[in-house]
Amino acid sequence: MYSTPKEEIESRISALQSLMRQNGFEGAIILQRADLFYYSGTGQDAHLFVPVEGDPLLLVRKSFERAVADSPLQHISEVKSFSQLKQSINGTGHGIKKLGMELDVLPVNNFRIYEDLFPGTEIADVSPLVKINRMVKSPYELAIMKRAAELNTRMFSFVLEVLKEGMTEMELSAHLEAFYRQNGHQGFVRVRSFNQEVFYGHVMSGSNLAVPSCSVGPTGGPGTNASMPQGAGLKPIGRHEPVSIDYVGSVDGYIVDQARTFYVGEPPEKFVRAHNVAIAIQEAVVKRGLPGTAAEELYDISLEMAKEAELLEGFQGYPPVPFLGHGVGLELDEFPVIGRKSPHILQENMVVAIEPKFIFPGEGMAGIENTFVVTASGLKRITHFDDSIQVVPC
Amino acid sequence: MYSTPKEEIESRISALQSLMRQNGFEGAIILQRADLFYYSGTGQDAHLFVPVEGDPLLLVRKSFERAVADSPLQHISEVKSFSQLKQSINGTGHGIKKLGMELDVLPVNNFRIYEDLFPGTEIADVSPLVKINRMVKSPYELAIMKRAAELNTRMFSFVLEVLKEGMTEMELSAHLEAFYRQNGHQGFVRVRSFNQEVFYGHVMSGSNLAVPSCSVGPTGGPGTNASMPQGAGLKPIGRHEPVSIDYVGSVDGYIVDQARTFYVGEPPEKFVRAHNVAIAIQEAVVKRGLPGTAAEELYDISLEMAKEAELLEGFQGYPPVPFLGHGVGLELDEFPVIGRKSPHILQENMVVAIEPKFIFPGEGMAGIENTFVVTASGLKRITHFDDSIQVVPC
Repeated sequence: MYSTPKEEIESRISALQSLMRQNGFEGAIILQRADLFYYSGTGQDAHLFVPVEGDPLLLVRKSFERAVADSPLQHISEVKSFSQLKQSINGTGHGIKKLGMELDVLPVNNFRIYEDLFPGTEIADVSPLVKINRMVKSPYELAIMKRAAELNTRMFSFVLEVLKEGMTEMELSAHLEAFYRQNGHQGFVRVRSFNQEVFYGHVMSGSNLAVPSCSVGPTGGPGTNASMPQGAGLKPIGRHEPVSIDYVGSVDGYIVDQARTFYVGEPPEKFVRAHNVAIAIQEAVVKRGLPGTAAEELYDISLEMAKEAELLEGFQGYPPVPFLGHGVGLELDEFPVIGRKSPHILQENMVVAIEPKFIFPGEGMAGIENTFVVTASGLKRITHFDDSIQVVPC
Repeated sequence: MYSTPKEEIESRISALQSLMRQNGFEGAIILQRADLFYYSGTGQDAHLFVPVEGDPLLLVRKSFERAVADSPLQHISEVKSFSQLKQSINGTGHGIKKLGMELDVLPVNNFRIYEDLFPGTEIADVSPLVKINRMVKSPYELAIMKRAAELNTRMFSFVLEVLKEGMTEMELSAHLEAFYRQNGHQGFVRVRSFNQEVFYGHVMSGSNLAVPSCSVGPTGGPGTNASMPQGAGLKPIGRHEPVSIDYVGSVDGYIVDQARTFYVGEPPEKFVRAHNVAIAIQEAVVKRGLPGTAAEELYDISLEMAKEAELLEGFQGYPPVPFLGHGVGLELDEFPVIGRKSPHILQENMVVAIEPKFIFPGEGMAGIENTFVVTASGLKRITHFDDSIQVVPC
């Protein structure tokens, strides 16, 4: 089993402590699975106590042996109850007036257990600090994400082997998901936002690409039933209609987000034109994506270009979502948000998925998505499959 | 797209209102996706306001058209903001001192938005009532679950076609998951508990079946990486070792949970014996699973029988989990809990997955899982594949 290096964990903890210091936190309990893996190196069931100064304490419920094997942290104990947890944290001798927890994901009932456990302590939301910390990737993380991108390149090549007229979206999904799993994809894709569910992503064709849904992304889709109403459905794939594969590649916990459009037979001119506008938007954003640029500015550029191309209606969904892209890493909805009213300023080594997409109601979609890293010379590609519309013969 | 009948929704709402009345709630906002689908018939992005008397109001953010198509409710409006939401709920004229929300899943930050929206209103946890309501299934729901069970029967038959010595657990998973998707499985399996993640279930072999993990179930498994450390790994499947397929079948939003053990070549005697003890436990529990029986009693019976068979160590995991089974329906972790200190009393038409399992550290696992409905004559099977150990030739 793969382990995160000690220096990597140390530098992450130290960055969090620095943010905690600036924001008046004396300690934080990290609990959510992605955050816990990020700061401790293990995804086992555990609490990570991070004091604003000094060493963190990993308090493991299950499995202790595996957490010890995974994590380079020095101080790892087994705790079986909340009272043991309290004892361990209080035993560190840190006086904690303001304790951080991930209040963006922690359910109210769980929160109240910690409130009772630490009376007199203010429990405040540490998740903005965690997200700010996590949005800038290390070279180590970027190297893993490149491997996830390589898996996606192979998956997209595989589409060309299996895509046939008449197969349903679900049949195509089955082939691609099996390919992913055969190649080590963890399957589960983590999304942080409440009530959001993603299953690899969206594989859809023609009119289904324009079906709106509960999804927070530009595409929706029918899904398989009214309970899980997004993504691939039972529609057979026809000739000359867009087949969009918007799938999340994953290696060793990290993900990349990428979309390409395939056709059985030649694409209609309208969709080719919109695809080219999407590529032009991507190019403009790549150039402007410099450290110091406001994330919102990239979104504004895309709106302006969509408008100029007379493709504003349907741009980023129908109805539209107010963003062009989003951070990715351990989760699909990381910082920065490349969208309207985003407070984020681009920094070197942020990783963002940029997805200009045009929905044509009742007909389909054109567009593209790639995952990029912010560099001193603009956005640099992490995902690498050919951007062109991909055509397989009828 | 499949729709829930009007009478079904009406009877669910009426049951919730009755529980709300008994518990002093004047209204409830249902938000969580599985609950929302249960009470409204749609899984779109919406709030369902249920007053203790009178008609519920479905307030839809996205997609309004699809929610209208899905839901048989009379009063459906589009709301685009929290202030519109407040206006709509206040506009019903219901004075609400105690408002129910699903505080077992609602994150603190989201909760605070509703607190601000409804000042002077106590927001209390309605989730226990929802869970009590949902744990007893209607004939309509049972019929869907039977279809999910039929899918699982076909999936288990398919195992016999694809299982080969030397293939990895992930390769086997890839085949079975593709089979599921080709046959309409929604993919995503809903789990309600905070920080719990399930991807179809667990496919593991030999020693991997005894690897402990963060999973709340009897089996753990290595998973593919330290971030997502449960379930199938890269271990090749060998001769004469157990291959457990514990997978969740799904049709139209509903799930069943089922496990069978396969072998390439004959199973060792020790594992056959433990399998037979698991079958005997299942039989005893099936007989005792009558309306009025305490759920805990079934767990106690299983402990007693495991002890008698001198198989208590490793029973229900190593370390063990304190339950023999759990409710299933729209989610994998529904009421009732068949375990230690469970407050639940069996009622007709509850649906439970019963999973006696014996872990042999370093070696593997024996056991079985089936999904049953509680009837006047005991537990009745919903899942139907042959209970025997399944052997494919070397």
